[in-house]
Amino acid sequence: MNLSLSKIGEFGLIHRIKRLIRTDNSVVQGIGDDCAVIKFNQREYLLLTCDMLVEGVDFRSQEDPYLIGRKSLAVSMSDIASCGGMPRYALISLGIPKNKKIKFIDGLYKGIRDLAKVYSLNIIGGDISRSEKLVIDVSLIGLVEKNNLVLRSGAKLKDIIMVSAALGGSIKGRHLRFSPRIKEARFLVNSFKLNSMIDISDGLTLDLSHVLEESDKGAVIYQDLIPLSRDCSGLEDALTSGEDFELLFTLSIKEARRLLSVNDSFFPIGHITGKKEGLVLIDRLGNPRKIKVKGYTHF
Amino acid sequence: MNLSLSKIGEFGLIHRIKRLIRTDNSVVQGIGDDCAVIKFNQREYLLLTCDMLVEGVDFRSQEDPYLIGRKSLAVSMSDIASCGGMPRYALISLGIPKNKKIKFIDGLYKGIRDLAKVYSLNIIGGDISRSEKLVIDVSLIGLVEKNNLVLRSGAKLKDIIMVSAALGGSIKGRHLRFSPRIKEARFLVNSFKLNSMIDISDGLTLDLSHVLEESDKGAVIYQDLIPLSRDCSGLEDALTSGEDFELLFTLSIKEARRLLSVNDSFFPIGHITGKKEGLVLIDRLGNPRKIKVKGYTHF
Repeated sequence: MNLSLSKIGEFGLIHRIKRLIRTDNSVVQGIGDDCAVIKFNQREYLLLTCDMLVEGVDFRSQEDPYLIGRKSLAVSMSDIASCGGMPRYALISLGIPKNKKIKFIDGLYKGIRDLAKVYSLNIIGGDISRSEKLVIDVSLIGLVEKNNLVLRSGAKLKDIIMVSAALGGSIKGRHLRFSPRIKEARFLVNSFKLNSMIDISDGLTLDLSHVLEESDKGAVIYQDLIPLSRDCSGLEDALTSGEDFELLFTLSIKEARRLLSVNDSFFPIGHITGKKEGLVLIDRLGNPRKIKVKGYTHF
Repeated sequence: MNLSLSKIGEFGLIHRIKRLIRTDNSVVQGIGDDCAVIKFNQREYLLLTCDMLVEGVDFRSQEDPYLIGRKSLAVSMSDIASCGGMPRYALISLGIPKNKKIKFIDGLYKGIRDLAKVYSLNIIGGDISRSEKLVIDVSLIGLVEKNNLVLRSGAKLKDIIMVSAALGGSIKGRHLRFSPRIKEARFLVNSFKLNSMIDISDGLTLDLSHVLEESDKGAVIYQDLIPLSRDCSGLEDALTSGEDFELLFTLSIKEARRLLSVNDSFFPIGHITGKKEGLVLIDRLGNPRKIKVKGYTHF
């Protein structure tokens, strides 16, 4: 038997890899969350994450290099945000086609530098190789206070599920221009007790299903509550389209009430249930339907 | 003016990038050494490095996936070694062609896991994307005691230049099977005062020239002293072929004498001179010739 990758899919492959990996007790969280979490000092953990963007998959070659560079850093920042942390250091690996113009690379790095500056992030190194298609891999190191760390695995029964903005239609351009939700995440973890968080990179239902799986829970979400962005083409788009890069988080009813009373920029969309109930959508007429999880996968 | 990459070359590009980067005072060493160095705790620094391997450039697709995986980790370990540190955590980013078989990916990860185990390295995360050619980017985080840190920039006048093994001919297979010189580097930094170190990844003369440039020095090396490996096709090969992944380091005459008296597995090949003297090779007849630095570059 010699299975091809498309048979087990991206997440099947990640499970397959994870199963065989052992780590020592300095690793608080290994493979399977937005960031890896490592013991650092008495007060803080180190957060580590990397994201690879490939020409023709994550961006088109005719795109503005400034926006390509910016996005390559922003997607990793979004992972740091979803663990409640602050980005601190970046390593940039570039695979560059031989015929690329210096002007293109200059633009790419300006996009990276300008976004780094906003968050006082240090670009500390990288690697340059040659490749047929442009490849950018950004590794990001962040810090989070121990009691501010939020993982996918902490969702609790009856938690309220919330998102940080309207969803859908990112493909129309927002995926190249979005601001990673660092400030929003820091506001949340500094003032409220979040039980779980993830960033919506592969689509609302797929990313929510990651939270449910890691937390051994189910969820009910309400069609009427899901905020649709201007660019969104409809419910299905909001549920399944990738690269929104908004925060999806859960917190107790009490904490949710407190949040909603001081800030109206976060949207409750449902609540956490038991595992056996799965993921259920309540439609406009109040009818429940089981959601078959769909979203973006690479294979 | 719109220069292409091949006009300024890999190292021209790195200079161009470095010039515009600013870092804060938590960064001990940014772009321009084998690793970035970050303040960690009272006793240790964090070391960070990443290396991207691309199919068709750094390995051929028909190569054993086990060896490809192994090499992808080994090259980054070699960078940690050359700063005197111990590798601790790895992030693995993979760009995989859609039609790749699971068996291939399993082999690749087994190569990574087996080498990681030898050095008690934790694989803590990564990213998976789709790409036309296989791309592997490994980010490695290591630790080094503050007084064991060795950089490219510390070479001193009259230092002896040494290498950790015979050079050349790596392309015949060693580049896929080499052991990163972690133990050798740890032995050296624990027992001797090294002034500078680098790993030979782009060729002896090119990597030595990096040390000279960062240290503002020149060097004399002796043809008769350069140890040639069994696979080496001659002096030119030993001077310029990449991927030996041996340590190149400098230390005072006194320390070199002490090292040579207890251990015969390191080879002195020359000494450090003033910057204006450049890089000089003394041939078999005792004649000096200025070396035009050559080695592997990607463009």
